[in-house]
Amino acid sequence: MKLIKNAIGRMVPDEINGEKQIPFMGVNKYKPEGKTIGTQIKSCFEYPFDGNKTVASIKEALIKAGIKDGMTISTHHHLRNGDLVTNMVFDAVKELGIKNIRWFPSASFPCHEHLIPYLEDGTIHHIEGSMNGPLGRFTTKGKMKGVGVLRSHGGRYAALQNGEVKVDIAVISAPTADPFGNANGVDGKSACGLIGFALGDSEYADKVIVVTDNLVPFPCVPWQIQGNNVDFVVNIESLGDASKIVSGTTEVTKSPDRLLIAEYIAQFLDDSGIMKDGFSFQAGAGGTNLAFVVYLKERMKAKGVKARFVRGGSTKYLVQLLEEGLTDYILDGQTFDLEGVRSMRENPNHVNTSPFTSYNFNGKGNFASIIDAAVLGATEVDVNFNANVVTHSDGFLLHGIGGWQNCLYGKCTILAIPTFRDRIPVIVDAVTTVCGPGELIDVIITERGIAINPLRKDLLDAVKNSNLPYKTIEELKEEVDLICGGEPVKPKVNKEKVVAVVKWVDGTVIDSVFAVED
Amino acid sequence: MKLIKNAIGRMVPDEINGEKQIPFMGVNKYKPEGKTIGTQIKSCFEYPFDGNKTVASIKEALIKAGIKDGMTISTHHHLRNGDLVTNMVFDAVKELGIKNIRWFPSASFPCHEHLIPYLEDGTIHHIEGSMNGPLGRFTTKGKMKGVGVLRSHGGRYAALQNGEVKVDIAVISAPTADPFGNANGVDGKSACGLIGFALGDSEYADKVIVVTDNLVPFPCVPWQIQGNNVDFVVNIESLGDASKIVSGTTEVTKSPDRLLIAEYIAQFLDDSGIMKDGFSFQAGAGGTNLAFVVYLKERMKAKGVKARFVRGGSTKYLVQLLEEGLTDYILDGQTFDLEGVRSMRENPNHVNTSPFTSYNFNGKGNFASIIDAAVLGATEVDVNFNANVVTHSDGFLLHGIGGWQNCLYGKCTILAIPTFRDRIPVIVDAVTTVCGPGELIDVIITERGIAINPLRKDLLDAVKNSNLPYKTIEELKEEVDLICGGEPVKPKVNKEKVVAVVKWVDGTVIDSVFAVED
Repeated sequence: MKLIKNAIGRMVPDEINGEKQIPFMGVNKYKPEGKTIGTQIKSCFEYPFDGNKTVASIKEALIKAGIKDGMTISTHHHLRNGDLVTNMVFDAVKELGIKNIRWFPSASFPCHEHLIPYLEDGTIHHIEGSMNGPLGRFTTKGKMKGVGVLRSHGGRYAALQNGEVKVDIAVISAPTADPFGNANGVDGKSACGLIGFALGDSEYADKVIVVTDNLVPFPCVPWQIQGNNVDFVVNIESLGDASKIVSGTTEVTKSPDRLLIAEYIAQFLDDSGIMKDGFSFQAGAGGTNLAFVVYLKERMKAKGVKARFVRGGSTKYLVQLLEEGLTDYILDGQTFDLEGVRSMRENPNHVNTSPFTSYNFNGKGNFASIIDAAVLGATEVDVNFNANVVTHSDGFLLHGIGGWQNCLYGKCTILAIPTFRDRIPVIVDAVTTVCGPGELIDVIITERGIAINPLRKDLLDAVKNSNLPYKTIEELKEEVDLICGGEPVKPKVNKEKVVAVVKWVDGTVIDSVFAVED
Repeated sequence: MKLIKNAIGRMVPDEINGEKQIPFMGVNKYKPEGKTIGTQIKSCFEYPFDGNKTVASIKEALIKAGIKDGMTISTHHHLRNGDLVTNMVFDAVKELGIKNIRWFPSASFPCHEHLIPYLEDGTIHHIEGSMNGPLGRFTTKGKMKGVGVLRSHGGRYAALQNGEVKVDIAVISAPTADPFGNANGVDGKSACGLIGFALGDSEYADKVIVVTDNLVPFPCVPWQIQGNNVDFVVNIESLGDASKIVSGTTEVTKSPDRLLIAEYIAQFLDDSGIMKDGFSFQAGAGGTNLAFVVYLKERMKAKGVKARFVRGGSTKYLVQLLEEGLTDYILDGQTFDLEGVRSMRENPNHVNTSPFTSYNFNGKGNFASIIDAAVLGATEVDVNFNANVVTHSDGFLLHGIGGWQNCLYGKCTILAIPTFRDRIPVIVDAVTTVCGPGELIDVIITERGIAINPLRKDLLDAVKNSNLPYKTIEELKEEVDLICGGEPVKPKVNKEKVVAVVKWVDGTVIDSVFAVED
C-alpha cells in the first residue's frame, strides 16, 4: 500500500484489502467504464414450484447458501439500533467456524457492538459500511484486520451494480414477508417503513435470505423486495427491539441556538426565492432539521406556497405537510417514527424510494440532483467549505456517510451546524476528513450567521435584500476561534496506518482515516 | 439452416437469422448457463442534473439514441389496437433511411398493418414477437426477410435478461410520465392500467425513450417504469385511440355453448376441491373466461369461500370480486377495461405485476407456478394434450403466445375450448404447431365434456363423485370428428421454409411455422 495525493490534496492509499483504488479526481471527473455485473442465470425448476422457500433457521439458510471462508455478507440498517438479526447472523457464522467474512452493511449502529469479538477473532475480516460508535472506536484504534471502506448510500448501490463489491450472501430483515420472499417494511410488529437499502443486494447478491417475524401467505403486498430475487425465507420470533427500530415519536430541538439555526434556514429558503410553488426540499431527522420544517411550514402557509415533493427520512412533521396539503408527495428513503410508518402504509402519495432511484451516481440521473434544497449536517466544515461527517476533531470515526454525499448534488446544499460543540469549533482551517468537496456545499447556516459559498454568486444576489446575518466563512471562523480559544487540538495519529477510506459517490477515494494513537 | 427433430419430434431449425438455436429438450430439461447481461455503466453527469430529459420529437430521440442500420428496436402492446406510437417510430425510422431493423414488440395488433410496407422495403428485417392478424398472414406467406421468433411474455423477459436479445433502443409508450422518465399507465387520457411489459426493456436496453401524451411535473407517481433507466422523454399530442386501448366495458359471452363451458369450469373447480379458502386462479379476458368468473363467484359466495388472489388480465368481473371481498388481491398483468384501470389506480390491493414477477423462467421462481388454477384457451389440442395457440389449422400464424406458455406451470392448467370452430375441429390428432407440451396441460373443458390428462391421477381421483360429463380426449375427438366429418384439411406448406419459430419458456425451440403456399 502506497499513499498518494488525490485531487484535493488528501493522502489516500492506492490499494486496500488487496484491491486497487482510484484516487478522487475532482467532482464529475471520473467515469467508470464497463458494464454492470450480471448474476448467475437461474431456472425456476431449481426453486420450489409452490413458491415456498422457507427454511428452519438463519444457520440453515447460511449453510444452504453455501457459506464459506472469505465470503461477503451484507445486511441493512432498517432496524437501526433495534437490529438483532445481524447479530444472529454472525453468531451463526461463528458457530459454523467460518472466518474472514467481509461484512457489507448499509450502516451499523451501537447495537452491533456485539460483533466486536468476531472482529477480534477473525470471524469478520473488515467492515465496508459505516463504522458508528463502538465499531468506529475499535476501527480507529487500528484493531480491525482489514481496512474499512465508507460509502454513501448511492455509492453503495453503485458498488453493487458495478461489481466493485460482489455480495455472496445478502441477509434482508423484513418486517413482513411471504414464503416466496416478497417482503416489505410497512406491516408487522417490527415495521420500519421501507427496506429499500436492501434493494441493490437483492438484485446483485448471489444468494438472498429474507428473515422475517411476520410471515404472511403469498402475496406479501406491497413487495418492496421482490421474491423473484430471493433464495430462502426464515421465519423467526423477533427481528429486534421495536422501540429502537423506529421512534415512537420524534421531537424538535429545544436548544435555543438550534432553534435559531432552524429559523434562519426557513427564512433563507424564503428570502432566496427557493421556497416557491412546486419547490422541493430534503430534511433529515435531527432536531434542527425537524424544527426548520416547522418554521418553513408556517412560511409556506402564510404565502400560500405548496411543495411538489419533500424527501425524508420522514417524521410526523413531513407527514403533517403531506396531510395538510402542503406537499403533493413525500419521497421517502427511510422512516424515522411511527407516524412516518403509518403514512407510508396508508398514503399512496408517501412513496418509498431506494438508493437506486435517489442516489445512484452510476445511473441515468438520480433524484438527489433534482431537489431544490437539501438541509444537511456536518461534524466539521473548513474555510473552503469542505465538510466532514464521519470523524470528529479527535480523529475518531463515529458516523457513517448515509445519503449525505449524494444530497450534495441538490440545487442548493445547506449545512445546518452550530459553530461549536462541547467547546470544540466546528468551523476549522482544514477538516479532519474530507467527505464532501467545498464546491458542492453552498450555504453554511449557524447560530452566529450564514455563509454563502462565493462560487454561488446567484445565491449571494438572491439574498441581497435579506436581513439575515450574512458573513464570510472566515468571519464565522474568527468568531468561533475567539470563543473556543482557537482550532481544536489535533489528535495524535499514525499517518502511515490507514484504518478506513472514504469513497466519493463515483467510487474514487476522497480521504483516509488514520489510526489514532493513545 | 438445418432442420433437426427436437424432444417432442418437431422439426426445428438449428440456426435462424444467423443465430444458433437450441432445440426443445423436454420440460425442465434445459438450464441456460452464464450470467445475466450487464448494461453500460452510466454517470449522472452525462444526464441533465435538473432531471429534464425531454426532447422535441420521436425522430430526435431516435437520432440522439444513435439509431443505425441493423439495430433492434423494442415496443410494447399496452396500447393494444389503439397504438399509434409504434407506427410513428417506424415512420421516423423510414424517414431517416435506416434499414434492417429487428423489431422486438411484446405483441403486435392489427393496427400494425401500417408496418407492412416497411417489412417489404427492408426498413424492418424481421419481427421477434407475436405476428397477429395481417402481420401473421404476411409472415406465413413467406414474405418477411428474416425468420420470426415467437416468445411467451416470460420468455421475452428472459431473452432480455440473458442477453439472447440485445435491445438497442426501447420505445415505451407511457400514458403518464415526468421529464425524468418516471412513467405509469394508470393516469392520463390514454390510461391503459399498467406498462409492465416494458420493464425488462427499461432495465436491459441500451437506450430507453419514453413517449407520453400526459407529461406531469416530477415525480410521476406511481413510477411503474423508473426514470433512472430512461434516456429521453418525448411529449406528443396523442399516443393513440383510447377506445381501442382499453374497452369501455367487457362483457361475458352470449353463446350457449360457451356459457356451458364456463359453467363446467366453475363446477370443476368446486368439485375438484381447488375452490377453497385461500385459493387462487388466473382468468383472461375472453368471453368464456369472463363467464366462468361469474359462475365461480356464485359458488364462492354460496360456500363462503374467499380467494387469496386472482390474476388478470383484469376486467370489471375481477374488480367486483375484489370490491366484494371475495379475493384479497388482484395481481394484474394487463388491464382490459376501464373498470380495471380505475381499480388499479384507486385500490392498493389491485397490484400491477410484470413478466419478471409473473413469468420469467430464468428467475428464482415466478408467480405462475404458485397459482392453483389457470384457465386458458387454445386454437387446437391434440390427443396427447399438446396444444397450439399461434396458428390455425390452415397453417396461418394469427396469434401471439402471450403469457400462455408461462401459465402452463400453474398447479392445474385448464384449456377451455369449443370442440370445433367454423365447422373445423379443435381437438385433433396432431396440432399444427406445438406451443405447449401435453404433460403440462391438465384438463380440457369443452361444451361436450371434460377430459382430464391421465397423468393427473390426483385430479381424476378428486372428481370421482362429480356429475360432470368426464370423457377421454379420444372420446371427445371421436364425437367432434363425427360432427365435422373428420380432421381439418391440411394446408399446403413448404416444409423446407421456416417462416417463424416458437420458443419454449427456457429459450429452446419447441416448433416451427412453415410457409403456406397458395
